[in-house]
Amino acid sequence: MSEIKKIGVFTSGGDAPGMNAAIRAVVRTALYYNVEVVGIGRGYEGMINGEFYPMNRRSVANIIQRGGTILKTARSKAFMTPEGRKEAYNQLTNQGIDALVAIGGDGTFTGAKIFGEEYNIPILGLAGTIDNDLYGTDFTIGYDTAINTVTDAVDKIRDTAESHDRVFIVEVMGRDSGLIALRSGISIGAESIMIPETKTDIEALLNRLEMSRKDKSSRIIIVAEGEEDSGGAFHVADVIKNRFPTFDTRVSILGHIQRGGKPTAMDRVLACRVGVAAVEELLKGRKAEMVGLVHGKIAFTPFDHAIKHHVEINQNLLRIVEILSL
Amino acid sequence: MSEIKKIGVFTSGGDAPGMNAAIRAVVRTALYYNVEVVGIGRGYEGMINGEFYPMNRRSVANIIQRGGTILKTARSKAFMTPEGRKEAYNQLTNQGIDALVAIGGDGTFTGAKIFGEEYNIPILGLAGTIDNDLYGTDFTIGYDTAINTVTDAVDKIRDTAESHDRVFIVEVMGRDSGLIALRSGISIGAESIMIPETKTDIEALLNRLEMSRKDKSSRIIIVAEGEEDSGGAFHVADVIKNRFPTFDTRVSILGHIQRGGKPTAMDRVLACRVGVAAVEELLKGRKAEMVGLVHGKIAFTPFDHAIKHHVEINQNLLRIVEILSL
Amino acid sequence: MSEIKKIGVFTSGGDAPGMNAAIRAVVRTALYYNVEVVGIGRGYEGMINGEFYPMNRRSVANIIQRGGTILKTARSKAFMTPEGRKEAYNQLTNQGIDALVAIGGDGTFTGAKIFGEEYNIPILGLAGTIDNDLYGTDFTIGYDTAINTVTDAVDKIRDTAESHDRVFIVEVMGRDSGLIALRSGISIGAESIMIPETKTDIEALLNRLEMSRKDKSSRIIIVAEGEEDSGGAFHVADVIKNRFPTFDTRVSILGHIQRGGKPTAMDRVLACRVGVAAVEELLKGRKAEMVGLVHGKIAFTPFDHAIKHHVEINQNLLRIVEILSL
Amino acid sequence: MSEIKKIGVFTSGGDAPGMNAAIRAVVRTALYYNVEVVGIGRGYEGMINGEFYPMNRRSVANIIQRGGTILKTARSKAFMTPEGRKEAYNQLTNQGIDALVAIGGDGTFTGAKIFGEEYNIPILGLAGTIDNDLYGTDFTIGYDTAINTVTDAVDKIRDTAESHDRVFIVEVMGRDSGLIALRSGISIGAESIMIPETKTDIEALLNRLEMSRKDKSSRIIIVAEGEEDSGGAFHVADVIKNRFPTFDTRVSILGHIQRGGKPTAMDRVLACRVGVAAVEELLKGRKAEMVGLVHGKIAFTPFDHAIKHHVEINQNLLRIVEILSL
Repeated sequence: MSEIKKIGVFTSGGDAPGMNAAIRAVVRTALYYNVEVVGIGRGYEGMINGEFYPMNRRSVANIIQRGGTILKTARSKAFMTPEGRKEAYNQLTNQGIDALVAIGGDGTFTGAKIFGEEYNIPILGLAGTIDNDLYGTDFTIGYDTAINTVTDAVDKIRDTAESHDRVFIVEVMGRDSGLIALRSGISIGAESIMIPETKTDIEALLNRLEMSRKDKSSRIIIVAEGEEDSGGAFHVADVIKNRFPTFDTRVSILGHIQRGGKPTAMDRVLACRVGVAAVEELLKGRKAEMVGLVHGKIAFTPFDHAIKHHVEINQNLLRIVEILSL
Repeated sequence: MSEIKKIGVFTSGGDAPGMNAAIRAVVRTALYYNVEVVGIGRGYEGMINGEFYPMNRRSVANIIQRGGTILKTARSKAFMTPEGRKEAYNQLTNQGIDALVAIGGDGTFTGAKIFGEEYNIPILGLAGTIDNDLYGTDFTIGYDTAINTVTDAVDKIRDTAESHDRVFIVEVMGRDSGLIALRSGISIGAESIMIPETKTDIEALLNRLEMSRKDKSSRIIIVAEGEEDSGGAFHVADVIKNRFPTFDTRVSILGHIQRGGKPTAMDRVLACRVGVAAVEELLKGRKAEMVGLVHGKIAFTPFDHAIKHHVEINQNLLRIVEILSL
Repeated sequence: MSEIKKIGVFTSGGDAPGMNAAIRAVVRTALYYNVEVVGIGRGYEGMINGEFYPMNRRSVANIIQRGGTILKTARSKAFMTPEGRKEAYNQLTNQGIDALVAIGGDGTFTGAKIFGEEYNIPILGLAGTIDNDLYGTDFTIGYDTAINTVTDAVDKIRDTAESHDRVFIVEVMGRDSGLIALRSGISIGAESIMIPETKTDIEALLNRLEMSRKDKSSRIIIVAEGEEDSGGAFHVADVIKNRFPTFDTRVSILGHIQRGGKPTAMDRVLACRVGVAAVEELLKGRKAEMVGLVHGKIAFTPFDHAIKHHVEINQNLLRIVEILSL
Repeated sequence: MSEIKKIGVFTSGGDAPGMNAAIRAVVRTALYYNVEVVGIGRGYEGMINGEFYPMNRRSVANIIQRGGTILKTARSKAFMTPEGRKEAYNQLTNQGIDALVAIGGDGTFTGAKIFGEEYNIPILGLAGTIDNDLYGTDFTIGYDTAINTVTDAVDKIRDTAESHDRVFIVEVMGRDSGLIALRSGISIGAESIMIPETKTDIEALLNRLEMSRKDKSSRIIIVAEGEEDSGGAFHVADVIKNRFPTFDTRVSILGHIQRGGKPTAMDRVLACRVGVAAVEELLKGRKAEMVGLVHGKIAFTPFDHAIKHHVEINQNLLRIVEILSL
């Protein structure tokens, strides 16, 4: 394989806290090994439109603690077409970019797999998404921050819930997955958690509320965005209101605050570790894999495995919610 | 007037960060002057139902930093009836409570005014509400914390808005008032602010968006809950989507997180100052007034003035939003 | 007076949270009035060395929430000499800068007063310092943030103090002033506060500790950096250890964390208000004054008054500490 | 083995954020299995002195988010003597406590091992310490929070370091271990990290500072409390001042803030998982082991292994610091 002289780095898909820490790690590691590095704006869309920014040490100074992504991110329809990818390849060739580090989620890696194969470009991926829904890494960059953001927000809701003896139904992010709901639910001491991966038994919840009637002053129920059996947060609230008219039941949709904010230490360290590894492995000839952290060690997973495998819900965590909230 | 031997303190209406700091101040000041003090649970409702808790120094230890209210709060229909107030009076008499400190907003003070007159009980009020909609104090207890909570939340939204070049319409609390929207709007560098107190000119906003098209990557528009001309946050979003289909426009309703959280230093200091003053003034024979802080000095306002007077919007702050967001 | 065409803005002296919000306000207001604006790096030192950065709207985008100052700050010996100021003047003339906004504290304004008089340059000042030690504004930019930073830090110390029944002596910033100590002391519920402005009576403190022996599990004593009677935080700790060998007494020096961090909403709003006013007033011909906020209204104070007048300690706040901690 | 009817839970040694979440988990799990549970105050000291508090569901309501430990903690000389342990055993017998969950660090487990053997009491331990210096769990309860507290504090210091182009030497906790320094050093983008586990080469550091002279405006050097080669933070500062008199070099000792604060989501989830497992395993007859989390799964380690084994520094993390700070 030909030696790599210039690496391109970009973020794609939904933004996640820690993406900037990952960009910094990729840029500085490349420079450490005397390889040029170029930032590509707006993901695949910017690659096609030629948004290229030569990076130096200062370009990434003082960004490790910032939310969002300084390279910006976007979803690209054009890149799903052969013409779009051809244009992207031409742009990279003009820039002399001969390898890529892609930071994002499954959509990002799907594109990277096809593109890498079509044009034989070495690409490695970093899992940057708050959803933690990728196979091949214990945590994705942004997940820990999102869990802590939800925790802080619901701690605030708990204050007012306690003061008014209220029942709160809180909807958290997770279109296809309950991973955010599950962990944050334990973290805030939720009464119950409703997620797409498991059958939601509202009757059981109503019975729990009945049982703990005298015992509890406030209750928080976490519902994942993508959860459908329950009919969603507002429907759950209606069911509870019908059964317990005397309860003061409210709904809160946390929304977009879950994507932003300063990355936690864990997300920063994770981003640094996989960012350094990605560049070092590219230089060794590795390609078409996601670089993750499994059991504290760097691990590599082919793109198609990383996105295809369903991340299983830890049943033990569901048991814990039940035991601790009874 | 007969000497005061036992003071009752309670929180009523919506909870606000800093209420605990106020309770602590009232309790410790009463004890400092060797006056007994009783906490009344759930506001007027608890007064009627006899929820009385004798307080000592330890009862309020380590609560100055906690959100919500340890005495809980509620709205009381019963207290709006003469029978309810009679029962409340009997309960106080049985307890030997001969003066009250009421912590809450306009509803709380309306009740306090009537009750104090009907039964000739000395009552002083502390402005505890995030809405800052009371006359006779520069800030209400909880307002500064709510503004900072909104600011932190929208700073997070800004991260993702910047990363995706999005327009966000953010709805903040304020059913009858734009005071939260106005201050937090300046604090987060909002593009525009829509509040009930002023005519909302959506055309003007659309023109601003048009003008700044090339100039800006993300935009945050703050809409007060009670703002109606615009049709609300979702309607504003629809109007913008129609006019600028290429913009990625989103809505976020901040909701109940705005009531909770640790009180800021300013809210704690305010609560301590008015709490101490309320007890000292009760002991001097003052009654039927709200104790506020005006221009850094303790000020007293009759209950009916405190709630009747409309708090005016500072037009200069609106000008600042326009100048700084252009 | 000749019309102003180009304004220079700089930060000088110790950095304070909110300086960036002030820079943003000055830059955008100038552009709003179609006046050019130049950022000057490293205060007077950069003025002499010619560190000039033309500013546009984007130069100050997304900085309102950042701590520190993007223009950097420094202390300048050279500017204290006539030669240094002459060089500074020549640099400004070469740049065509015909007016200045100086953001800093007393040292900054002392220089501004002399420089403005020597070369007849209109200069207005913004109070940017965490110390709140300037006459002519209720709060300086950065003060509220510093108070909240101290409060958050001591809330953490309180957790461990409570868990171990410890006495903590916490030193906060304030070389010549106890204003940070006083407000944060109330905010965190300090047992006692020691400040330069008042005689420190350690015997009285020891008696209080004796009295509350059974009553209290943890105690926090706040000592201002500049407080001397007591001999400083470590000496106070020694005195307490001698008198109460069974107490577990510790010292914590908060140090430089007090200067950094995201500005609070209050500091951002303050910075925006005075920043807008400074430019508007410069254009109206005002000069040699500090622009502050007094009782919620913009106020102007000649530089020499702003720095000469001693800011008095609010005795009422000292009383509150005593009442609430007894 | 006889059936367990009443479990005692206590915290011992230095406090750590998340201890309350662990207490809550132990109490609620015991009640879930219809086993009585008693809180023991002040660790072994309180066991000897008979500080016993019967716990119910409400006893641990709303504490999951609180720093410190509601049961308080202490170090006990008396428990190191056979007489002390005999008295402790008598107290437990009088209370009918037939099993224990000990939350703390190596000192706590050393005592638990001896006590459990002497009196044949089943005891399981939870790793509650910010130092992460126990073998048999990937993270100890409190470590992640401490890392984030250091990160937030140094992010603030970075603001002022950047504004003044300063070099900061920051001392973090870790008497015998550099684990806090190492992880937080990566998280805040430290220039260099000095820890007890590795030889500190100050010359190398000075050379790095020389090399990056033009390249960098601010630098943060993290020194672990227990690091000795360097002579400590103040000595490192002196060496740098001598070699680079023009650098503005400062020292900051973070101190006790590192032990307090709200636990992070990760520490809360960890505490819940091991707390539930401890009670379930006690009921199954397990004893004399620490319950940890290894690679995401509950793991058990005999007390003497947990404390004897030295936790190794991840050399790869040291490499990352060097690569990313060059």
